[in-house]
Amino acid sequence: MAGGNVGSQIISVDQSPLVDDNKENVEIHNYTLPFTVPGWYADAEQDWPGEARLMKVEKVLFRGKSKHHDIAVFESSAHGKVVVLNNVLQITEKDEFAYQEMLTHLPLCSIPNPKKVLLLGGGDGGILKEVSRHSSVEQIHLCELDEMVINVYKEFFPRIAIGLTDPRVTTYIGDGIEFLKSVAQGTYDAIIIDAFQQMGTLAEELADKSFLESVARALRPGGVMACPADSLWKDEFSVSDTVASCRKIFGGSVNYAWCTVPAYPSGMCGYMLCAMEGRPVDFKHPINPLNPENYGVDNGPPKFYNSEVHTAAFCLPGLAK
Amino acid sequence: MAGGNVGSQIISVDQSPLVDDNKENVEIHNYTLPFTVPGWYADAEQDWPGEARLMKVEKVLFRGKSKHHDIAVFESSAHGKVVVLNNVLQITEKDEFAYQEMLTHLPLCSIPNPKKVLLLGGGDGGILKEVSRHSSVEQIHLCELDEMVINVYKEFFPRIAIGLTDPRVTTYIGDGIEFLKSVAQGTYDAIIIDAFQQMGTLAEELADKSFLESVARALRPGGVMACPADSLWKDEFSVSDTVASCRKIFGGSVNYAWCTVPAYPSGMCGYMLCAMEGRPVDFKHPINPLNPENYGVDNGPPKFYNSEVHTAAFCLPGLAK
Repeated sequence: MAGGNVGSQIISVDQSPLVDDNKENVEIHNYTLPFTVPGWYADAEQDWPGEARLMKVEKVLFRGKSKHHDIAVFESSAHGKVVVLNNVLQITEKDEFAYQEMLTHLPLCSIPNPKKVLLLGGGDGGILKEVSRHSSVEQIHLCELDEMVINVYKEFFPRIAIGLTDPRVTTYIGDGIEFLKSVAQGTYDAIIIDAFQQMGTLAEELADKSFLESVARALRPGGVMACPADSLWKDEFSVSDTVASCRKIFGGSVNYAWCTVPAYPSGMCGYMLCAMEGRPVDFKHPINPLNPENYGVDNGPPKFYNSEVHTAAFCLPGLAK
Repeated sequence: MAGGNVGSQIISVDQSPLVDDNKENVEIHNYTLPFTVPGWYADAEQDWPGEARLMKVEKVLFRGKSKHHDIAVFESSAHGKVVVLNNVLQITEKDEFAYQEMLTHLPLCSIPNPKKVLLLGGGDGGILKEVSRHSSVEQIHLCELDEMVINVYKEFFPRIAIGLTDPRVTTYIGDGIEFLKSVAQGTYDAIIIDAFQQMGTLAEELADKSFLESVARALRPGGVMACPADSLWKDEFSVSDTVASCRKIFGGSVNYAWCTVPAYPSGMCGYMLCAMEGRPVDFKHPINPLNPENYGVDNGPPKFYNSEVHTAAFCLPGLAK
C-alpha cells in the first residue's frame, strides 16, 4: 500500500507496511487511566484529568506501529469507525467532518483567491477533501510525518482519504518543522496545521515561538494560518493570552473560533486563525464563500460548514478568558 | 429545611427531609450500563447507547429518595459538585451556568418587557437567578414537582439556589401539567420549561400535543416558551420536524438554538424557542438586551450569555435536519 497514488506525488517514502498482527481480541487501553472496561475504549487525556469518554467497541479492525505512532482502528457501536493514535482518540466517523470542514474553510473562505496551500499533518485526507472545494487553489502541499496514517485512512476510510486524490496535491513524508525550513519565505497563501497530538498542549506549542515563526515566514503578506486550539472549557486556557502571543508573531488579525465536536474533550474544538501583516483579513466575515456546486473530489456539499456557522464560530461566551 | 424562605412563598409543601442515610462509600451506578468503575460515576442515557461519560468521584455528599426522585450529590475531581437525578447526570458546577443562562435569556431577551414568567421545573434556582437580572419582570411562578430538589440545592449549591430568594418568586410544589390547567388563559409573557428528565425524549414530549397546548394556552399573544431540545448530533432528531410541530401549536415564530454544555451527551444542549401568534418575535435578534449592571440576586454578570452568543446559537450547521 505504500507509495504514490493517482494525483499525488510522494517525495520521500517510509515503506512501512500495514503490520496487522494482533487485531484479534485486543483491547485498546488508555494508560493514563487507572481502569479498563472490557469491550469499551476509554478516551482520556492527560490535560483533562478526572474524566473519560467511553465508546463501545464492536470490532478491532487494525492495530499497527510505525516509527512514530501506535495506530488502532475499531468499529464502534454508535460512532462509526474510530481511529486512536498513541492511545488518544483521533477521529470518529460520526463527527470528523465538523472538525475538518471548519479547520479548512475558516481560513480559506477568509481570503480572496487562495492559490498555494500547505497542510502540515492531515495525512488522513479530510482537510485535503475540503481544500478541493476551492477552485482558486493551484497547489496543495501536504507534509505528513507518518505514512502509515495515510495508508490506514486509504484502507479504512476511503471517503476521507479521497482528498489525497486531488491532482493538485503533492505529498511530502517528513517532519513539518524541517519542511518549513526548506521553504522560501512568503511561499503560501494559507497554512493549515492539522496536528491532533498537539491539541492538548497547544499553549506550549504556541509558546514555541520558533515553530510559529517558521510558519509565519512561509506565509505571504496577508496570508493566513489555522490550527486547532484548546477548548474554552479548559481551565488553564486563555484566549486573550493566546491571541496576544500569536499577534506578535503574525502581525495581522488573530481570532479564536470554536465548533462542536462531540468526540473531543468538553465536546468542542477550538481554532486559532492568524493573518500576516498586509491586506487586512476579517476572519469573522468570510469574503470568499464556498461555491455550493463545487464538490471538489467529494460527492456532495459540506455536512457542517456554511457561512452562517463561520461567523457564529467567532462569537465567544463570557467564559472565554 | 422544608418550608418557605425569604422572598418565596411555598404554597403546597411535601415535607420530605433530606434523608441522607447511605452516603458513605456508596457508588452511584448507572443501570443502563453493563459495567461499573469503582470510584467513578458513569453517565449514560438510554437515548445515547454505546457511549458513556465518566467522572472521578472524590466524595459522595448526599443520597436521598423522594417520592419522585433518587438524588445523589458528589464532589468530583474535575467538574465541581455534581447532581445525579434518577441515575442521570443533572448538572455539574463546571458548566451548569451555560445551560441555565441560555434557557433563560434566549426567550426573555427576545420580547419587550416580560412581566409574568412561569418556570416549570427548575427548583434548583439557577433559572430563577437568571430571570432575576430582568428588571421588567414583576412575578415569577415556579412550579417544581419535587421539593427535595429545592432543599438539596439550597444545602449544597447556595450560589445556584440564590435564585429562590428573589422576592418576585412564588413557589408551587406539584405537577406542572396540573398547574397549567389551573391557570387562566393568556396569563404569562414567558414560560420556561426546565425539564431535564425529558431532554432525552423531547421528541415524544413534543408529540404530546396536549401538554404543549396547555403551555400555549397559558401564554399571552406574542408570548414565548423555551425548553431544552435534543442535540443536533442525535441521529433520530429532526430540527425541521420539531419546528413544524411546534409552529402548529404556538402559531408564531419557532426556532431551534443550541449551546456548548460539556456534561451533556454530545457536549451540547439544544433549545426550542416558540412564540405565540401576535406581535412577531425575532428570536435571533434580541430586542431586550440584558442590562450588564443589573446582577439581580447574583453577585456578578452572566458567565456565558451575551447578545453575540444569543444570535450565534441560532446558526445551524449542515447536519441539522
